[in-house]
Amino acid sequence: MFEAKVKAEIIKAMIDITSHLINEAKLNVRKDGIFLRAVDPAHVAMVDLSIKPSAFEDYRAEDIEIGVDLDKLGGIMKLASSSDVLSLKYEESTNKLVIQIGNLTRKMGLLDTAGMPDPKVPNLNLPAKVTLKASELMQGIKASEAISDHIALIATKDGFELFAEGDMDTVNLKLPKDLLMEFEVPERCKSLFSIDYFSNMIKPIKGSQPVTLYLGNDNPVKIEFDFADKNGHAFYLLAPRIESE
Amino acid sequence: MFEAKVKAEIIKAMIDITSHLINEAKLNVRKDGIFLRAVDPAHVAMVDLSIKPSAFEDYRAEDIEIGVDLDKLGGIMKLASSSDVLSLKYEESTNKLVIQIGNLTRKMGLLDTAGMPDPKVPNLNLPAKVTLKASELMQGIKASEAISDHIALIATKDGFELFAEGDMDTVNLKLPKDLLMEFEVPERCKSLFSIDYFSNMIKPIKGSQPVTLYLGNDNPVKIEFDFADKNGHAFYLLAPRIESE
Amino acid sequence: MFEAKVKAEIIKAMIDITSHLINEAKLNVRKDGIFLRAVDPAHVAMVDLSIKPSAFEDYRAEDIEIGVDLDKLGGIMKLASSSDVLSLKYEESTNKLVIQIGNLTRKMGLLDTAGMPDPKVPNLNLPAKVTLKASELMQGIKASEAISDHIALIATKDGFELFAEGDMDTVNLKLPKDLLMEFEVPERCKSLFSIDYFSNMIKPIKGSQPVTLYLGNDNPVKIEFDFADKNGHAFYLLAPRIESE
Repeated sequence: MFEAKVKAEIIKAMIDITSHLINEAKLNVRKDGIFLRAVDPAHVAMVDLSIKPSAFEDYRAEDIEIGVDLDKLGGIMKLASSSDVLSLKYEESTNKLVIQIGNLTRKMGLLDTAGMPDPKVPNLNLPAKVTLKASELMQGIKASEAISDHIALIATKDGFELFAEGDMDTVNLKLPKDLLMEFEVPERCKSLFSIDYFSNMIKPIKGSQPVTLYLGNDNPVKIEFDFADKNGHAFYLLAPRIESE
Repeated sequence: MFEAKVKAEIIKAMIDITSHLINEAKLNVRKDGIFLRAVDPAHVAMVDLSIKPSAFEDYRAEDIEIGVDLDKLGGIMKLASSSDVLSLKYEESTNKLVIQIGNLTRKMGLLDTAGMPDPKVPNLNLPAKVTLKASELMQGIKASEAISDHIALIATKDGFELFAEGDMDTVNLKLPKDLLMEFEVPERCKSLFSIDYFSNMIKPIKGSQPVTLYLGNDNPVKIEFDFADKNGHAFYLLAPRIESE
Repeated sequence: MFEAKVKAEIIKAMIDITSHLINEAKLNVRKDGIFLRAVDPAHVAMVDLSIKPSAFEDYRAEDIEIGVDLDKLGGIMKLASSSDVLSLKYEESTNKLVIQIGNLTRKMGLLDTAGMPDPKVPNLNLPAKVTLKASELMQGIKASEAISDHIALIATKDGFELFAEGDMDTVNLKLPKDLLMEFEVPERCKSLFSIDYFSNMIKPIKGSQPVTLYLGNDNPVKIEFDFADKNGHAFYLLAPRIESE
């Protein structure tokens, strides 16, 4: 059983955060909220997302799994303004999600969740933690995209650094620790990542909202942030690229 | 003879209403206004449009026919802002339309109207009449486009309904009669239509402007609306699609 | 040696003015400003541009030549808002330009200027001079693009005229001398030009800013304007097209 009312922007945020990694998602709908965890087809990245009942105008649920085509749901969300309140209802008899937007009723067929895995979060040694504005990171990413397809993320005792190198060009975003919102770096950490993946993970975070990076040495990065007025929480894990030199 | 001054937005509206059905139009310019009636090349739809002299800042005309390339005229309108007042003048000696926008004079060669027909409006039995906001209809159309290429329009004693069905999905826009601006439905009427055609006919109607639908059973729909502050009037006829089941 | 601080919009303007003619530019950086002169690969047009030290927030330079990939520099400028102040510094040891935008450091490899020529400005007989708003010209250009690939620019004792002719259509922009900001026409002058080239030369001039045209008979046009609050100055020379009749 699932029946809820929610602002369209909450569902839009969920889609923005996940749809660059996966086309189909299994939503675990429970009394205490909606949960989604998935690994992308190339097994390079994981996304984990949860939305509390407090993000909804109205929320009633018992444990069910809902298999959603994210592109299709994204298309439906374009029918609503961000602040429109939608009604969502799971129709068990037909296995459809019934979405009500004003006078419009849109029934969406759901996917079979039987084959969709429940990935485990791996244990990782990520000693460094830095929190900064997403917009700062985004500027470094955009600058790097033009000259390379990978970037180095570096945490030192002095601060955080993003570095990219092309044939004739370099990009260096340097944030001394006093410009960071949080900073815990017991040792120098450096790992390389695909710009494409990393860019898609920072894009869903609006403007100057904070994002926390957990870094190790040649280890994945964990990218953590809140959304939906802190009623939603998400993190990504992104595997490193191995430096070839 | 034809000489007039008019806000660019009036001519832009005329082009928006007609150019999705036809590339070339015959304008019947008369003392009492400008008249256009045409059938699309596939013979699926008819458009009928008239603009009263009161829509113009200045209007003087005697009976002539003007053959216009609508794309070309649309391109010329892009040179003007909506509220710019244009001068229009038919130059008989060269068979050109002289369009003055500020200090710019644009002479447009006209088309031979000899081969362009004057279609008759067929007699139709369309007992149901409903008037609603174009924006309501548009939301139903957009939702339907994603899952099907045709929609059903249904009028019952309770109200108006738009319905579309895909492989796994449905769209249902339901407007009870108290949400309609006009409502005269002596019997249940239902017909199927191409979404593409129907969508292009609702698009030119701005925002929450009213549009009136006349419906029958497996019969064309008549779509009627005003524009240019009620100094312009238009209707479409759209042939039904036959339900295959 | 070159070290400067400047609003991004000044560098963006430099790129807008030059990059439609050339991909690579040699900047002559001197104590009294930055100078660029180049001929396009087809030898149809010349651009000459100078920016005074007063355009900069801070400017220190000794004579050097800097070879710049304009597309690459344009991409870097997209990382900054128009009003952002950038630091520019020539790094001699690596032959790179170091561009600082906030916390971001972008080092751009420079091009070898050895093969880049220093074209001379030819002596031209251009007796007519008219100054008008760029936006007026632009409207005439846009109207003409739809019907021809060349335009005539005409100065007479009565004013300035732009004329284009298609198979069935004409465009005529007529500005009587009292609508012109400057007007010195000792004799009738008329030359034909490529609309593409001419359009790209007027586009970088913002809105209703003045532009001065120097015209002769079947001779190049000189197109002169200021930018960067009159701290920048530029002119184009554009070769005429010979009328074929």
